[in-house]
Amino acid sequence: MSNQRVVELPVLDEPVVPCCPPLTERPLTAEEAERTAAMFKALGDPVRLRLFSLVASHAGGEACVCDISDVGVSQPTVSHHLKKLKDAGLLSSERRGTWVYYRVEPGVLAAMGQLLGAAAR
Amino acid sequence: MSNQRVVELPVLDEPVVPCCPPLTERPLTAEEAERTAAMFKALGDPVRLRLFSLVASHAGGEACVCDISDVGVSQPTVSHHLKKLKDAGLLSSERRGTWVYYRVEPGVLAAMGQLLGAAAR
Repeated sequence: MSNQRVVELPVLDEPVVPCCPPLTERPLTAEEAERTAAMFKALGDPVRLRLFSLVASHAGGEACVCDISDVGVSQPTVSHHLKKLKDAGLLSSERRGTWVYYRVEPGVLAAMGQLLGAAAR
Repeated sequence: MSNQRVVELPVLDEPVVPCCPPLTERPLTAEEAERTAAMFKALGDPVRLRLFSLVASHAGGEACVCDISDVGVSQPTVSHHLKKLKDAGLLSSERRGTWVYYRVEPGVLAAMGQLLGAAAR
């Protein structure tokens, strides 16, 4: 193994890029599946998926808890779910004044889309 | 929103086609999120995701439990997970003799990929 090719990346506040080839190419290893399943799991909750779509479709491509009021759960619950989406590498966040603003991580989604889309060919 | 783009689809043993526009277009409704989250949830388990990739990448595009031996769980557990993937509309199945063969539902995956990929643009 060449150490020159191994780059240690900061874990927090960096895009988490999926590891894996299209699903038709070869079976995922246990480790690859572990990493990728976490992203699918984050989108596997209806409230989180709705919140995710709210952020993704919000003007300017970002939203804070202050922009979200109609999903039928309390503001602390919204914050909790947004943090889970961030922890899964699907959203990034930036604090500005009182609020934390979330935006979609484009690279990760494109890679997930490719993972799935390629499997459908 | 145009109602002309909404199609009611049969529920049982038919391909389950996601209902929804790209995530950047507008927030999902509660009902749309409920339907789509079930698919992401099915892929949100590492063993299920591995099994899914095994089926997707298997010769001929299909596999039965008899083809799967190296995921570290028992055959009944494999069957249980394959059924969950089928229930979520991600796999279809056909019994031939002793075995049930599973294959990936192409349309659904393409649609999921589009849902995500489009959000990343």
